[in-house]
Amino acid sequence: METKPMRPIRLAQDGRTVEVIDQRQLPHRLEMLSLDTVAQVIEAIQQMVVRGAPLIGVTGAYGVLVALRTTDDEAAFLEACAQIKAARPTAVNLAWAVDRVVACAMAAPAGTARQAAVLQEAGRIAEEEVDNCRRIGEHGARIIADISRAKGGQTVHLLTHCNAGWLACVEWGTATAPVYVAREMGIDVHVWVDETRPLNQGARLTAWELGRAGVPHTVITDNAGGHLMQRGMVDLVVVGTDRTTFTGDVANKIGTYLKALAARDNGVPFYVALPSSTFDWQLQDGLADIPIEARHADEVHWVQGATRDGPARVRITPADSPAANPAFDVTPARLVTAFITERGVCKPDRADIAALFPEKVQND
Amino acid sequence: METKPMRPIRLAQDGRTVEVIDQRQLPHRLEMLSLDTVAQVIEAIQQMVVRGAPLIGVTGAYGVLVALRTTDDEAAFLEACAQIKAARPTAVNLAWAVDRVVACAMAAPAGTARQAAVLQEAGRIAEEEVDNCRRIGEHGARIIADISRAKGGQTVHLLTHCNAGWLACVEWGTATAPVYVAREMGIDVHVWVDETRPLNQGARLTAWELGRAGVPHTVITDNAGGHLMQRGMVDLVVVGTDRTTFTGDVANKIGTYLKALAARDNGVPFYVALPSSTFDWQLQDGLADIPIEARHADEVHWVQGATRDGPARVRITPADSPAANPAFDVTPARLVTAFITERGVCKPDRADIAALFPEKVQND
Repeated sequence: METKPMRPIRLAQDGRTVEVIDQRQLPHRLEMLSLDTVAQVIEAIQQMVVRGAPLIGVTGAYGVLVALRTTDDEAAFLEACAQIKAARPTAVNLAWAVDRVVACAMAAPAGTARQAAVLQEAGRIAEEEVDNCRRIGEHGARIIADISRAKGGQTVHLLTHCNAGWLACVEWGTATAPVYVAREMGIDVHVWVDETRPLNQGARLTAWELGRAGVPHTVITDNAGGHLMQRGMVDLVVVGTDRTTFTGDVANKIGTYLKALAARDNGVPFYVALPSSTFDWQLQDGLADIPIEARHADEVHWVQGATRDGPARVRITPADSPAANPAFDVTPARLVTAFITERGVCKPDRADIAALFPEKVQND
Repeated sequence: METKPMRPIRLAQDGRTVEVIDQRQLPHRLEMLSLDTVAQVIEAIQQMVVRGAPLIGVTGAYGVLVALRTTDDEAAFLEACAQIKAARPTAVNLAWAVDRVVACAMAAPAGTARQAAVLQEAGRIAEEEVDNCRRIGEHGARIIADISRAKGGQTVHLLTHCNAGWLACVEWGTATAPVYVAREMGIDVHVWVDETRPLNQGARLTAWELGRAGVPHTVITDNAGGHLMQRGMVDLVVVGTDRTTFTGDVANKIGTYLKALAARDNGVPFYVALPSSTFDWQLQDGLADIPIEARHADEVHWVQGATRDGPARVRITPADSPAANPAFDVTPARLVTAFITERGVCKPDRADIAALFPEKVQND
């Protein structure tokens, strides 16, 4: 049982090679890939070798290091960083982290000092996210503890969508952190895991992560959560987010909005757990303004898994049927009970978010 | 292009063997199975060789014929019919059709006359369902025509969940019948097809059926419909049902409730298309009283499809993760815009349903 398992991104023993878990292979294979070129960094982000808003951010931060090492030309370096930043459109952490490390790079003299500064800043971002996630876990665990108390100690049933676990972050996770901390506190928690088509991050990653940590869980189809809520079998929903406006609108994995609607219809509290790096301090209207990535139709047509002989994929649709694959949806603030951030819990509105992060939200 | 394709159940050339399309093999293989024993009839229903409320009913009706042929003992015959009736719990058509054909059998003298009576009654049910579905198509097509007119002839985008097509019925389908009839009328219709995990009846069956009929369609994950509705990309939702109370609550494939919530939240009309054989004239409270089938967890763990080498299935979950698989959910009447029945369109309430089917609904 490991509640703080390995990290999905790390520096190798040599202290300089960036290595990541190839999350496409989980749960069937646990393999590391090294990212030695900017093209590899971009491909890892786009092909979802790494995924999850905080982890994409940290990968972008280390990507700046890779960019710096692979060119001596400043313009080429900045262009490479711009390409990394644009690798995926929805998660705001990527741009935030790349911008932050690039600013740090440009403030240092070129050469060894710049490389050292970038290495340090990327590492700082990673450690900050670990710290943020642990705090999210502590704030969220109090919510779970309250429910447990109200239920007289009976099992608390939490539903989550996609993977907002340590695989999506660095340690702890966002949505899963409260579960891990609640378990440390001795609270009896069971997790309903939405499989999360098309890429099954729930069935493949969240289930694997919870299983390794010994957390009781049950995989369900994305269709099942509403039914479970109707039957009183879900005490709370906790999800992560890829980008949240400072007004409280939440872009997260496609299908999140449907669970928020079901939670509202059944009086089930719906929480979004996020580090402040996932807030977009510029956008007001999530539905109108957050760019929603359209991914390849083949992710719908083909399902990745394993036969008894090893990894394989099967086509589920007729050969001539088209498919569409929007990767995220926007849950409006009105459907969110509260945010769980590293600084505490707040309502999904501008005033309450600004009260927690006054340095970030401009006054009107 | 075939708008009235083959039937999913038929009598073979010999005029007596009951044959069905093995729907588990679609879209990759189109194979017929013959049902020669009661055990085969029950297995075909339980293993979803045949599925869809109207088709399960017709299969049950022909199952009575199989039962009658395979025993001379009246008690054994009635016991076999009771077993067929209990093969699946949620769709009410099965019990309705078996009861109707058994009553017909018992009203005829044993022997050849009884066999003839049962053959005729089963055939009558099949033909009635074809006729009902055609009428549902005509009533539903008027709704689509109205939307088309309001959009100035632009494409009407209809979303459906699971397969309520001719594969689920005998011809036409329930939810798809309005599409086929609208196309006959020259209306431009495009269908968003929910893949419908775990068994992917949308991705496998509805997409195949629409493709054969030349109907423009796009397969989406079950997670995507809410997002499309938020973006104004869905003009109406039409689904089938496995059992509908005379008060208007709708049991249908798991996940239907989530689409009904999204439709309500976005002002998209949500229709349920059904022949009157799918109404349960006894149950008042769908959520409390309709039995919801729990199917095997392996349907969640494993996804059926085809590799380039042929049919195969892949496991998507970790080996030690449990899964749960409720097969249906209940959409409360308050979320339904209207029913499309063979007698016309009605509101989802007792009075309006009773006005269309006065012989069925008892007055208080």
